[in-house]
This record gives sequence, structure tokens and C-alpha cells, in this order.
Amino acid sequence: MNPIVIEKTRQTASLLKENNIDLWLTFVRETSAGGDPILPLIYGDSDLTWQSALIFTCSGESLAIVGRFETETAENLGAFSRVIPYDESIRSVLLAELERLNPAQIAINYSESDVLADGLSHGMYLNLLALLEGTPFTGRLISAEHLISSLRGRKSDLEIARIRQAIAITEEIYAKAFANLSPGMSEIEAAGMMQAEVLKRGLGFAWPRANNPAVNSGPDSPVGHNAPTGIRIERGHLLHFDFGVRESDYCSDIQRMVYFLKPGESQPPAPVRKGFNTVVQAIQAAFNAVRPGAQGVEVDQAARAVVMGAGYPEYKYATGHQVGRLAHDGGAILGPAWDRYGRTPFLPLEVGQVFTLEPGLMVPGYGYVGLEEDILVTGGGAVFLSTPQTELILK
Amino acid sequence: MNPIVIEKTRQTASLLKENNIDLWLTFVRETSAGGDPILPLIYGDSDLTWQSALIFTCSGESLAIVGRFETETAENLGAFSRVIPYDESIRSVLLAELERLNPAQIAINYSESDVLADGLSHGMYLNLLALLEGTPFTGRLISAEHLISSLRGRKSDLEIARIRQAIAITEEIYAKAFANLSPGMSEIEAAGMMQAEVLKRGLGFAWPRANNPAVNSGPDSPVGHNAPTGIRIERGHLLHFDFGVRESDYCSDIQRMVYFLKPGESQPPAPVRKGFNTVVQAIQAAFNAVRPGAQGVEVDQAARAVVMGAGYPEYKYATGHQVGRLAHDGGAILGPAWDRYGRTPFLPLEVGQVFTLEPGLMVPGYGYVGLEEDILVTGGGAVFLSTPQTELILK
Repeated sequence: MNPIVIEKTRQTASLLKENNIDLWLTFVRETSAGGDPILPLIYGDSDLTWQSALIFTCSGESLAIVGRFETETAENLGAFSRVIPYDESIRSVLLAELERLNPAQIAINYSESDVLADGLSHGMYLNLLALLEGTPFTGRLISAEHLISSLRGRKSDLEIARIRQAIAITEEIYAKAFANLSPGMSEIEAAGMMQAEVLKRGLGFAWPRANNPAVNSGPDSPVGHNAPTGIRIERGHLLHFDFGVRESDYCSDIQRMVYFLKPGESQPPAPVRKGFNTVVQAIQAAFNAVRPGAQGVEVDQAARAVVMGAGYPEYKYATGHQVGRLAHDGGAILGPAWDRYGRTPFLPLEVGQVFTLEPGLMVPGYGYVGLEEDILVTGGGAVFLSTPQTELILK
Repeated sequence: MNPIVIEKTRQTASLLKENNIDLWLTFVRETSAGGDPILPLIYGDSDLTWQSALIFTCSGESLAIVGRFETETAENLGAFSRVIPYDESIRSVLLAELERLNPAQIAINYSESDVLADGLSHGMYLNLLALLEGTPFTGRLISAEHLISSLRGRKSDLEIARIRQAIAITEEIYAKAFANLSPGMSEIEAAGMMQAEVLKRGLGFAWPRANNPAVNSGPDSPVGHNAPTGIRIERGHLLHFDFGVRESDYCSDIQRMVYFLKPGESQPPAPVRKGFNTVVQAIQAAFNAVRPGAQGVEVDQAARAVVMGAGYPEYKYATGHQVGRLAHDGGAILGPAWDRYGRTPFLPLEVGQVFTLEPGLMVPGYGYVGLEEDILVTGGGAVFLSTPQTELILK
């Protein structure tokens, strides 16, 4: 029994109805090699070795057609109304169930825009077409992208509790790091101090350790998905962190800012204050634009307009992405209408989604300013899950 | 610099020539969500976030077209002759390079049979078709499965050294466990003892911990991909283990057998001896059948014939699979001509491949007998990488 799998599979029947889909088919094999990213939500951590079909219907049936050796594992999940084992070929059992259910639509896991709804490989798509050849079902295949996006995006209570826990730990590790930072320390040393806390606490990294945390000290540090460098913290420079942990399979993703006062300074210089306040205001503008049914492109535009309106160049990435089992949890994003984001900025926001808000800008001569907060979409609008940073930390 | 990536990307040009392919394109996005299983060999551990194209040509060019933020990471790999960053859309840069190179074939990562050559998702395939629309390249797309299968299968010297190291550690942990096993201990306790060694040594598990090691004590233990149970070791019963570790990204996969003598027994009963010797002989028959150019189905048949010839039922799985970065490393298998194995039993064996040999059978009243050795394909035939078990361990 995996409580997340129980919670998430219970959501499927109503989501199928809402999307007017009779049947959802997840078709996989040898998932130890990677597998479909939806599996942790509907099958847990166990592997499926031979060609396997996980079927959910709008009437609430849930079937697992699996290789004989994996029958017991599938049954022990407690999430399937029936587990059907096979020995040599899945074809006859799969066709028998489809003929019995006779669905008008069969939703399968591909998406041009959403990597997390795109778990069907092209080879397995071809295998499925071959299995269904000569049946009417080949003409009934549709994309499950909206269904998966909603299933993944609408966090259950347990999922939200786990994300809150990951965020709380992240804020603790930040607080401890801030107490110990000092001029002369390199980006690599600052990152190492935080990574040691992650390891000591037995946590995972929300994205690979090579750039988690990302650390940028001063104006010459390369900003982006880069590893920390040997550049040293200096007085009169900004210090920027992007850091996230994974705890009980759920992630946080938070950016924070420090300024190192020069001798004689009692507050940061005006350009630093302006840059920082602009980012805080951009986050607040995005926060205010969040409501169920809004499009991410509107939320993105609210933040982007604040940054550009203050005279800074446009940032070259989306204002926010979903957070969950993965730091980048797919589905709708809070992003601009750029080709590389596909349709994801136009998907309506849904209650239960968790997003980052992370505008950024460069303050020439001082360094990069980026903050990142994690928020929950509720019926009444956004709620902060992280404790927003609204003042520069001064050291 | 990742020495494995350097070694493996250097193999690409000659493999492209051997397969008569002008250009190989790996097309991915948001690989933190899983990504293409070929990436660790040609790009290492770093993520590719936006749509990215890794291109290798038969003339030895290697190009990485990546999002601007990931330029430096791609350059630092030292494996690409050119890294080409983009900001909003990959389309124009990708088309410009394809037009310049004008390949007669573009091999892409899909395969109906080989999960590890099937890293292109169906949604990304549709995206690629859309990007190439109106060009002659849509008609030049072919499967890269043979190329990938050879690149992955033909282990380099460093890869073989790492697999040998994983095997050596596995044999050490087995030896320590055998010294400490005793009647009354449960399967769960026996597994826990071995897992504690894995964790103490900072190793990874070659497959998920839930059933690694798999442990089967006596005739009533469920055999397959099952978690160890509360069943206790008894005198007069067989004890079977299936165990593998991951060390420096490479795996082992080894099965071992113990028999617990009853009071008064100086050797196992005749049916146990016959079952054990049959499996040893089946492994030797498979070993003798391995040579470059042979088909896996021949090797499988050699082992299967020994087991069935001795009067045991046919085992319901393949005699062997490849081992490498993954415990099930894809490509050619040593398996029967069953539908679920697709074409993989018919692929000719190649020098440098590492396979398991793992026939098995049930001895009624005593328990399951399965041994698994790891072997390397060389020009002269098979070489054992594990130290074969040819005698039952008696306790």
C-alpha cells in the first residue's frame, strides 16, 4: 500500500469524466530503464518488466495487465480492481479487455508540450498500433495530456503536506547557511556547506547536485544552470542562491539573496535596492494575478511588465513552473508565448497546483537578483507556501 | 570532462559508418523528468532543459544545440566539436545545421524491441516532424536502434573495469552473508543483512531495493520479482539469492544458492544435487554457445535444452540479458523466440557485450534453484566476469 498511489488513482475516474474520456491506457515495458513519469503516481516505485497496461475507466474500473512474475507486486498496491497476469504475449488479454469495455476514446500518454504527460515512447506507440491492428481501437487513440496534467497538477492533501515539509527544511538550511557565510568564501564552498546539510539530514536533491544550490557571487558569475565556481564572496557584491531539496519524494525550489555591506555602508547602494525591490514587486504582481482559470501567460506578463517597466532587460525564461515530485513538475507554466513553451502557458490554472514565482534581473556592477517563492493555487487565489523574502539579507 | 562520455562519443563516427548512417540525432527536452537513456553515455549527468539536439555525423562532427543557459555545461563536457546555443526556438539553428550537413539518413532514437534505444517520446517525435515540415528530412528519418545497441553494448575498457569492480564487491558481500546465515533467520532478515553492507559501503542498488536481494527460502517462497517475505530459513531447504549493486554507475547481477543440511545429512539429497547440477550444466552450455555473430536465441536454446532435457519444466524467461549502466542494459538478449522479446533474441552478439546467464528450475519440496553468472563476449567466445558457483554452499 502506497498512500500517494491510493490517493492519486482515486482521482482518475472523475478526471476521466471531466475530460470526456472513456478509458486511459498507460502502456510501458522495462521501466527500470526510466519508464513513464506518471508511474510513481499510479504504480509507485516498483518496476514493470514486460509490456504492461495500466487501464483506468470513467466508470471507476482499474486494471493492471502485467507479466506473471509481477502479479503479486501489482496486487499488493491495493489500487487496482483487477490484476491480470500473462506469460508470453499481452495481445490477447489486452484486446479482450478493450473489447469488453469498448471505449469510444482511448487516451494514451503523449504530449507535444508537456514532458510529464509524454511518457509513451515512439517505439511503444508503434508496438501499440501493431497490437491494435485490425481493430476499431486504432482510430480511437487520443492524447491523455490534459488528464495527466490535471492528475499531476492537482495536488492531494498529502502531496501538499509533503511539499510544505520540503520547503520548511529548505528554509532551515538557508537560515543556517546565512549565519555562516562570509567574504572570502568561494561559491563552491558556500554550495558545499549547504550540500553537507542535505546529506547530513538524509535528504535528496530536487535537481542534480552539480548545480544545487546554484550560487552566484557578484557581477562576473555565470548565471543559469551552472555549477558554482571558484569566484569568492566580496563586500559590495550580491550573492544569489537557487536551491531545492527532495523529502519523501516531493520537492522545494527556492531562490534567496544576500548583500555584503562594504565598510561604511549601512544599507545596500541604490541600484541594488532598486533591483531587489523590483523583483519583490514582480513576484507580488504575479501572485496577485493567480486565480483558477487564469492562463499562465497572464501571470507571467504581470511579473515581466514590472521588471521591464523598471527599465531592466526582459528575462529569457518563464516566471514560474509547477513543483511536485519533480522540481519542474510539468503541465501548465507561468510563461510567455514563446515557441519553446508550446501550449503550456495557455493552460488554465487549477486549484491544487503548486508553482514557483521567479523573476530575475542583473544589477550591473553588483550581481544577479533572483528570488523564487513557491505558491499554491486555491479557490481564492494564490497562497504562499514559502515565507517570501522581502528584505535583502545583509552581512 | 566525463571519461565515459569521452570514450563513448569517440565510438560514434565508426559506428555510424558501420551502420551506413550519415547522421544521428538525439532530440530531447526537460531531461530532469527522465530523459533518453542514451544521455548518460553521450552527455553525462547534466540536464538538458529546453528542446536540445545532440548530433553526431559519420565524418566525426559532433554538435550540441542547447538552450543558452546550458552552453557552458555542454562545452565543459569536452565531447562536442561545436556547441550552438539558442534563445527562443531551436528550429532555425537545427534546420541550418541539417541543411549544411544534408544527411541522406537521420537516425533517431526509437525502437520497438529495445527500450534503451527508444528514448524519443512520441510527443517529441511529433515535435520533430513539425520542425522538419516542408523539408526533405522528414523522409530521411530512420531508427537508430542498431547504432545505439552497438554503442551501448560494446563496452569500453573503462566500462568493463567498472563492471568487474561491481561484481567483485557483490561477491564480497555474498561471502560475508554466507558466513552469517543461519536457520530461523527470515528472508527479510537475510536481505536486510546484505542491504546494510550496500549502504555501509556507499553503493547503489542495481535494481530497486524492495527486491534486491530477492531471497527465496524453501519450496513455498514466491519466486520472481518479489520482495523477501517473513518465511524463515529451515534445514532441509534451499536458499536462493538474486542480488546486484551499482558502483561508479555500473552494475552487477548475480544469483547464488545455499543448502541447509538436515541433522545427519552430509550432502544434499539427490533431487537437490540433480537440480543444482542441471543449472550449472545449463550455464556451461550457454557459455559454450557464446561467440561473436551468434544469435541470442541459440545461446538460450543451449541452456533451455539442458533444463528441459533433465525433465524440468521450461523456465518462463530469457536465459540472459545485458548488464552495464543498468542491470537490464537492453539490446540483444539471450532469449527464446517469444513475442514479448521482439527481435532482441535474433540480434548477433558483439565483442564487448556483457551478459548474464541465469537458467532456473524448481526442486519440489526443497525450493528454487537459480544461478546467475556475468560473462563478457570476446573474439574467442565467452569469458566469465563472475566466479562461477559450481558447488552448493552447505550450512
